[in-house]
Amino acid sequence: MNYFSSDFKLGILGGGQLGKMLLTDTRKFDIQTLVLDPSGEAPSRFGSNAFYKGSLMDFDTVYQFGKMVNLLTIEIENVNLDALDKLEEEGLPVYPSPKTLRLIQNKGRQKDFYVANGIPTSPHLRFVGLNELRNSLEKDELEFPFVWKSAQFGYDGNGVKICRSALDLVKLPDVECIAETLVPFKNELAVIVARSASGEVKTYPVVEMEFHPEANQVEYVICPARISEAVAQKAQEVALKVSEAFNHVGLLAVEMFQTEDDQILVNEVAPRPHNSGHYSIEASYTSQFENHLRAILSLPLGSTESKVAGIMVNLVGEEGHEGQVFYENIDKIMAIDGVTPHIYGKRETRPFRKMGHVTIVNEDMSLARKIAEEVKNSIRVISVQ
Amino acid sequence: MNYFSSDFKLGILGGGQLGKMLLTDTRKFDIQTLVLDPSGEAPSRFGSNAFYKGSLMDFDTVYQFGKMVNLLTIEIENVNLDALDKLEEEGLPVYPSPKTLRLIQNKGRQKDFYVANGIPTSPHLRFVGLNELRNSLEKDELEFPFVWKSAQFGYDGNGVKICRSALDLVKLPDVECIAETLVPFKNELAVIVARSASGEVKTYPVVEMEFHPEANQVEYVICPARISEAVAQKAQEVALKVSEAFNHVGLLAVEMFQTEDDQILVNEVAPRPHNSGHYSIEASYTSQFENHLRAILSLPLGSTESKVAGIMVNLVGEEGHEGQVFYENIDKIMAIDGVTPHIYGKRETRPFRKMGHVTIVNEDMSLARKIAEEVKNSIRVISVQ
Repeated sequence: MNYFSSDFKLGILGGGQLGKMLLTDTRKFDIQTLVLDPSGEAPSRFGSNAFYKGSLMDFDTVYQFGKMVNLLTIEIENVNLDALDKLEEEGLPVYPSPKTLRLIQNKGRQKDFYVANGIPTSPHLRFVGLNELRNSLEKDELEFPFVWKSAQFGYDGNGVKICRSALDLVKLPDVECIAETLVPFKNELAVIVARSASGEVKTYPVVEMEFHPEANQVEYVICPARISEAVAQKAQEVALKVSEAFNHVGLLAVEMFQTEDDQILVNEVAPRPHNSGHYSIEASYTSQFENHLRAILSLPLGSTESKVAGIMVNLVGEEGHEGQVFYENIDKIMAIDGVTPHIYGKRETRPFRKMGHVTIVNEDMSLARKIAEEVKNSIRVISVQ
Repeated sequence: MNYFSSDFKLGILGGGQLGKMLLTDTRKFDIQTLVLDPSGEAPSRFGSNAFYKGSLMDFDTVYQFGKMVNLLTIEIENVNLDALDKLEEEGLPVYPSPKTLRLIQNKGRQKDFYVANGIPTSPHLRFVGLNELRNSLEKDELEFPFVWKSAQFGYDGNGVKICRSALDLVKLPDVECIAETLVPFKNELAVIVARSASGEVKTYPVVEMEFHPEANQVEYVICPARISEAVAQKAQEVALKVSEAFNHVGLLAVEMFQTEDDQILVNEVAPRPHNSGHYSIEASYTSQFENHLRAILSLPLGSTESKVAGIMVNLVGEEGHEGQVFYENIDKIMAIDGVTPHIYGKRETRPFRKMGHVTIVNEDMSLARKIAEEVKNSIRVISVQ
């Protein structure tokens, strides 16, 4: 297939920052792209060959969009799957497949899938709603503490709550959910697997999420993870097993826990480029976005090795700030060698809104880590006064 | 100044591949851009916030375009300078300045400028036309062999001819020109200097143009150049002197000869991102395009050091092929680690048309050089049969 400066058209469902970064590589290869997003202000409204505003959950909108392209991918999981099923039936390649997306869209189904495929994950119970969960507690099938997760539409910490007593249940929404055993862990790790339609597979190095000591929030994504070679190998093996079980095409980001006794438990997956792989733009021989493209287009996968150590810091809107964004001290961090800000292109900041990220690369990991802290302590995403 | 996700608008004159690669970084920083190019098929027609089709040589078109932006830069030298003068007079920052562009647009003036500023360059004579040149030969002021260069509008080997006898003069156009002494040289080198409005200066490492042993054509741009530290230092010093003499803002690519006796002679300059710096996208901590942006916006310059060795191979249209382009064996070269094709987005190939480039990066320069040869021997830019 001739993708380069040709009539071939790639459709992307979703026009957020992941889509925007993917477009960097479609432009590099001059592959035509069509983007669909519900917001006219989406970061991907520029850089594609054509941008369409429309609902990703509406059958007709997604189906009609799919009829205009030669291959369809996503940058967000919550899309109309019936439309994808029909498009796939009619012969359109859809990567990731709607079958995988259906498994992933529902956390209960996703967990059941791991169990069925012998993939290590923390024990869980599924509930249609809060009442069923309460009954389970009364019958002592479920015990405190546990991790409550909404089965659908949760992201970035939304739809997740650690429940230590009945008090924690009061504010939970009455939706389909799961309860997971709270497993103490040393590290939160992630491995991105690239798998092409032809079956070629490559894994990126294991990355480590470093949390703020108090605020239980990821502060840094660090590549490579500062873990033993044995644990890294185990994490990569588990990630490969997950990718194979899904028969996945494209990128699959596998988030995992390293338990106190060095077991690897799969937490959840994202079937697309992922926040934990942003470091790859500057640090890797091939960025996650380029490898997603290569994988879905059945092109040879690029090297997933790193040129240098990489650390990623998310830029989220400060509390107490809403309105036209201002990146305070961005010039200060840009004066440091190996520091690259990525600004997603959202004009309006809101507390905790993901507005961008900063990558820090260095030959020396400990120096990169020091600089990352300096970056984190300098830049602030605030509103124009 | 707040450039990021703000109302600030950067104007770019020219929408070719250099503009397209610059847009990768304006998108990364979410800086609004307006692009002007005479072709509706220009590579930069996507990726900017607004694309305008219009002549770069027309006073009114350039002037009106300039009135819409907060800062103006170029990706091609041949633009209407009177319009830039007027815009600059009216307070618009224009980088590079029209004064510099005027010096550079005319090779005679450019050479005189080097002489006046004590910058080493090969001896030259200026002529208003062919008759004056012939008179000079008759009076023995000028002797064969020499290098004839059209004073204006020459690029990529057009407008340059080595003249060894009167026969070589027959086909030359009767235009303003210069004749340069033919100096034997060992190497053709280039240094890119980034200089910001605030006066901060950084030089990229010296790169080397490796020529095909028979077809006098650049085959590889190699970073770092395989030369002695002493010669590299001299080349960087000369480049800095040139940048300072022009009081240049933005990128200045300085092309130089390393003579048989290790002198450095300036050949010519380009006041913008340059083919000799394309390797920097994959090999450097900061690409030339990002540093051009940083320089003209008075942001701190990024590190110009390399993460790994880089080699660039141009992709030009094969002889005998015209029409819808096909990149034969592109999948084959993409299977090699560290190989990244850049496809500029020109649908139609023509013999020798610059259609893209390929970057090869590797920790080991000699391995990179071997892979570059493999790339060069594999990929062909042909037309669809």
